[in-house]
Formats: sequence, C-alpha cells, structure tokens
Amino acid sequence: MMHELEIKVPSVGERRYKIVIGAGLLPSLWPQIKAAFETHRPFVITDENVVAAGHLDALLAGRNVPSFVISPAGEISKNIGTGVAIIETMEKAYLGRDTVVVALGGGTVGDIAGFAAAVFKRGVPVVQMPTTTLAQADSAVGGKTGVDSSVSKNAFGSFWHPAAVYIDVATLATLDERQYRAGLVESVKHALIADAAYFQYLEDNLDAILGRDPAVLATVARHNCEIKGRVVEADPNERNQRRMLNYGHTIGHAVESASNYDLLHGEAVAIGIVAAGLIEIEMGLSEPDRLERIRTILEKLGVPVILPAEMDENRLIDIVKRDKKAIERWPRFVLLARLGQVHHPDGQFAVEVDRKVVEGVLKKIK
Amino acid sequence: MMHELEIKVPSVGERRYKIVIGAGLLPSLWPQIKAAFETHRPFVITDENVVAAGHLDALLAGRNVPSFVISPAGEISKNIGTGVAIIETMEKAYLGRDTVVVALGGGTVGDIAGFAAAVFKRGVPVVQMPTTTLAQADSAVGGKTGVDSSVSKNAFGSFWHPAAVYIDVATLATLDERQYRAGLVESVKHALIADAAYFQYLEDNLDAILGRDPAVLATVARHNCEIKGRVVEADPNERNQRRMLNYGHTIGHAVESASNYDLLHGEAVAIGIVAAGLIEIEMGLSEPDRLERIRTILEKLGVPVILPAEMDENRLIDIVKRDKKAIERWPRFVLLARLGQVHHPDGQFAVEVDRKVVEGVLKKIK
Repeated sequence: MMHELEIKVPSVGERRYKIVIGAGLLPSLWPQIKAAFETHRPFVITDENVVAAGHLDALLAGRNVPSFVISPAGEISKNIGTGVAIIETMEKAYLGRDTVVVALGGGTVGDIAGFAAAVFKRGVPVVQMPTTTLAQADSAVGGKTGVDSSVSKNAFGSFWHPAAVYIDVATLATLDERQYRAGLVESVKHALIADAAYFQYLEDNLDAILGRDPAVLATVARHNCEIKGRVVEADPNERNQRRMLNYGHTIGHAVESASNYDLLHGEAVAIGIVAAGLIEIEMGLSEPDRLERIRTILEKLGVPVILPAEMDENRLIDIVKRDKKAIERWPRFVLLARLGQVHHPDGQFAVEVDRKVVEGVLKKIK
Repeated sequence: MMHELEIKVPSVGERRYKIVIGAGLLPSLWPQIKAAFETHRPFVITDENVVAAGHLDALLAGRNVPSFVISPAGEISKNIGTGVAIIETMEKAYLGRDTVVVALGGGTVGDIAGFAAAVFKRGVPVVQMPTTTLAQADSAVGGKTGVDSSVSKNAFGSFWHPAAVYIDVATLATLDERQYRAGLVESVKHALIADAAYFQYLEDNLDAILGRDPAVLATVARHNCEIKGRVVEADPNERNQRRMLNYGHTIGHAVESASNYDLLHGEAVAIGIVAAGLIEIEMGLSEPDRLERIRTILEKLGVPVILPAEMDENRLIDIVKRDKKAIERWPRFVLLARLGQVHHPDGQFAVEVDRKVVEGVLKKIK
C-alpha cells in the first residue's frame, strides 16, 4: 500500500541576455524595448530622484506608460511594503503575465523592481536600466533581487536574471557627488579580484572618471560588466566562485550596519577592502605596495579608509558574527592572492580567518 | 563608445523529486526528513485545523521545531500579510539559507509555504505534506505557489518545485465531509483528461473512497500524482499542455468567484466540468453516455452539478471575461475529445469557443 513515484523537473536551457552600454542612450531606447518585447506590455518602476533628474522623461518622451515612482528614494523604501504597493499598482493597471517590467534607477530601484518582476503572477521579465555608479557597476547584472522585512535586509528575494540591461552613462551626470564616488568602489573591487590591468586603467584615468567623462565611464562600465558577468556565468546561484564578489563586503556590511547606514554602501566597502588588505598581510598574502596603491585610489575617490572614530568595535564584531553566510557564528573571508586574483586554496573562494586576526585588524584600522 | 556584451545564464540540469504515498506515514517521517536534509534546519508551516486534528503532533512527536501555525485556517489567510508574518517568524528564529520548509496541510498551507520557501533569502527547499483530498490530488505536486494581494488571487507567486512530497492518506480521516468530497473532484478531473481506466476505477470504488478506505485512497493518490506529474514534466511552466489541468476550471473559477467563495473550489469545478460537457455537445465532441457518467459520479460525490439558483449569469459572464488567461477578454477552453483524452487540434490544449455557445450553456445549466 506504499507507493513511490519520481517526478522530473526538466532542465532549463541556457539563456542569454545582452548588456548595451553607451552615453546618451536613454532617448532612443523605448522603440528598442517595444521591438524586443512586442507581445508584452511595459510597466516602469523608478524613484522620485530619477524623475527629478529628468531621466524618466528622457526615456518615455511623453508616452503614456503605467509606472510606479518609489518615494522616498533610497534604501528606506526597499522593503516588502513597497513591493506590495507595486504589485497592487500593476494589478490595478490590469497588467497580466504579458508584462515586461522596466527598472530605471539605482540599486534600490533595481532590487525592488527585480523582486516585483520575479513574483508578479509567478514571474515576468525585467529590463534593468541602472542610473548610478553602484547599479551600473554591480547590482544591475547578476540576477540578485530583494527587499527588506522589518527584521532584516533582503529577507525576501529571488534569483531573477534580467531579460536585458541598458547602461546609459550619461545618467551619471546628475548623480550627487558623494553617491557618485561611493559607487565607484565596486569598480575598484572588480579590478582587485579579477583584472590587474583594469586596476591600472582606473589609476591612470581617475581624473577623467571623477570628471565624469562619458567615454571613460563607458569603458569602466564595460570592464565591470565583463568581470561580473564572467563570475556570475560560472556560478549563478553563489555556490562558491561567485563569493569572490563579496571581497571587502564581510567587514563592509558590518561597518555599514554599525553606522546605522550613515555610511553609504560603497563607503563601508572601502573600509572593508582596506581591512581585507590588512588581513592579507597577517595571512602572508600581501605584495609590496599593493595595499598602498589600494589606499591611494580609495583616498582619491574621497571615501573613508579607516573606521569612523565613534564606531564601537565590539558591536562590529558582534555584527560580523551574525553575517548571513556565517558558519558557527563566524564568516569566511574573501582575500586576494595578488592584484587581480582571489586566494582560493582547494578551489574555495572564501576562507577561514582566525577571530583574533580580524579583531586585531579592526583595532588597527581606527 | 557603444559597447555590447552578452551574458549567459547557464542551463539548469534536470532535477528529480520523489513522492511517497502511504497510510499512517506521518509518525515515521521526521527521521527521514532529517536524513534527507541533514545540513538543513527545518521550519514547519501548518494551520490551526491541522494542529487540532493532531497531525502536527503526529509528525513532530514532541520534538521542538520552529513553526508557524496559520490562523484562521483557509483561503482567507492566503494573502501576502500571512507571507510576511511567516518570513519574519523565520528570521526571528535565526533561520538562514540552510532552512528546509515543511508544509503540512491543505492547499492553502502548501501555496503559502511554497511561496515563503521560494522567496526566503532568495529561495530554500520545501517539502510538501498535503493533508486534504484537494492538496493530495492536485496542489502539492507541480510547483505552483502563490498568495493573494488585496486586489486579486495569486498576485504574488512563483514556480517553486518541492524537494519531496509525502502523502499520508491517513490524514484524510479527520477531514470534514464537505471538504473531503469537494477535493475528490480534482481526481475525477484527472481521470477525465488522461485515463479512462482510472475513471472506471473511481466509479467502481466510489463507496470505498467515500468510506475513506486507506488502500483505495493510496491508489487514488498514486493515479493523481502519476497523471499530474506526467503533465507537469512535459510543460512545467504552463506554456500549453499543462493547461489541460484547467479542465472545468474556466467556468469553475468564475462560479467560485461569483459565489463569493461560498462554494468550495471542487464544488465550483464540478459545475465547470458539467458546463464543459455541455460545451462539448455543442462542439460535436460528445460521446454517448459520457456526460451522464460524469454527472452520476459527481452526484454520488454530493457536489453540485448545476448553478446555484440565485447566481446571476451576466455577472458570471463578466467574470469569465476577466479570466487571467483571457485574450481580448475571452478565455480559451479545455475540452474532452473522448473520455481520458483532451481535444487538442494543432497541438493546442485550450481552444476557442464562441461566446454564444458558452452563454447558451450557462442558461441551460441552471
């Protein structure tokens, strides 16, 4: 009377999506999207800063398209409440499974819109149009989506790869200086983990980057997407290799949280990158001048390279213990073997570091 | 200055999950789950009716396992608010990506728990343990998950296939008679669309089924899982063939909605199946005696085969027009070619039916 059956969940074939990078793309994109998704009805998700900067108008040029404008802009709106409001707006616009979500904005917009697309009527495609240095370097590519609960960050989320990504570096012209600079830290991180020549390019072109030169910014975006794309292709669901993208982020996330988000993500990651460099010295993984070059480029970006004076390092250690990837209340760390290459003994891209080493580094970095 | 890259989203290999069917399985399942998910921490989602029936105690036998009890039980709790409460309970229990969700209950529990598993920290496995005739016949297999918004049904959802399904037909012993009988309509549907011999088995064993004979119920569960599994394997994301599972559901959903959910899902689908039979006659797809055999088995199940007298058929037509799979405000219909075989001209499993035909049938079925 006992029966046992087996159900096959069929394999899903490889899918490809394109990333288009240029300066001043936005005004000509809509017809392309309509052509690429001719059987779909578009729904735009953006935020009030993007609208104020004129990017939504540039994209739509007066076309009447149902949309949701996140307000206030920023992390504070990245929660399940906003997700629910977006889904209900889509339903009230009588949208169905033939919807394509267009995400126009920074990391917050991309994460929320990606999540909404992942769960609306069991999933519809999303086109990412990142408008910040952070989102263009990092969050628009890779398929991680998420919104926060009242308890923690990204409690709700999904791996939901975009159907296409359009990066218009001209949208960076209006970004405020602090956000602009903080977002560039992810570009430094990509260079450090994967491409020494790209690190050299960033050093050599830093004035043009800070001057927001479109041609240089387009090259930076291309390098970032190539590096991130390669890593994500090899390990889309973060089993191992993808963890290298977390370089500087273990300490960085803890610093960001301990600052109560007074520090921007990239600013906290800059401190985390320097902390990783100090750990590398303790672990015998340093190279002459490497940490100095890293400190110099971060200082030129104007992001912090030491902990805020008032930050309680015991609290910081406590937050590190609660890292979501911690095993027995202590996370693994991503470290460099050399510039452009992550240390990966036995193929493991996140490695054990003794608590005392980390505590010592956090004392030193004040 | 324009760059174009292409990102590969790698293919995902075929996955298999097992369905175990038996009578009195529940008390011995926990060690099996612990063994199958030894690196995972379990979290149980159930509802107050299942707890009152003693099934949670039977499963856990005093083990202390974090859990969430949905209250009140039933469709009224199948909404995003319950989903949020579950995710926050999981976070407060310090659960991480190494969680396995165990869904113990009927269709509502399975849909909510499947959705929670799909989105918690970007997705964790779910084990389905259906405890109703409806869930054992239908919703526990196939990977559809969802919760309602304040605007519509299953506005939030995901395709998230279970990691395993355990069907203990002994849990049906405590199910209330009306729910028990209504849930059996999905078994009739499976027989009609895929297996004439199984229909004959249901006819021949109806007394044992209504007497809740465990051996017969286990055979019924096996037939249902084989049929549904075969259809889902062929078309997991409902591009075409999977639509055959919607037999009786286009009118059925509309009737359920027009009754303001006074009718149970299976009761409304019973009316939808008879309506489909009448449409088949109009379309030249009838066989001698077929509709009479169907009516007879449904009447023996004690479910309605005509519309409630007070139901407004214009409202019904209006709801049919808003069907989520409607094209130009009119849905396609799944019809039988013969007993055990869906009509599928040119490989299309949902076909056009003239509005007048449907309106005529709805007049006739009062």
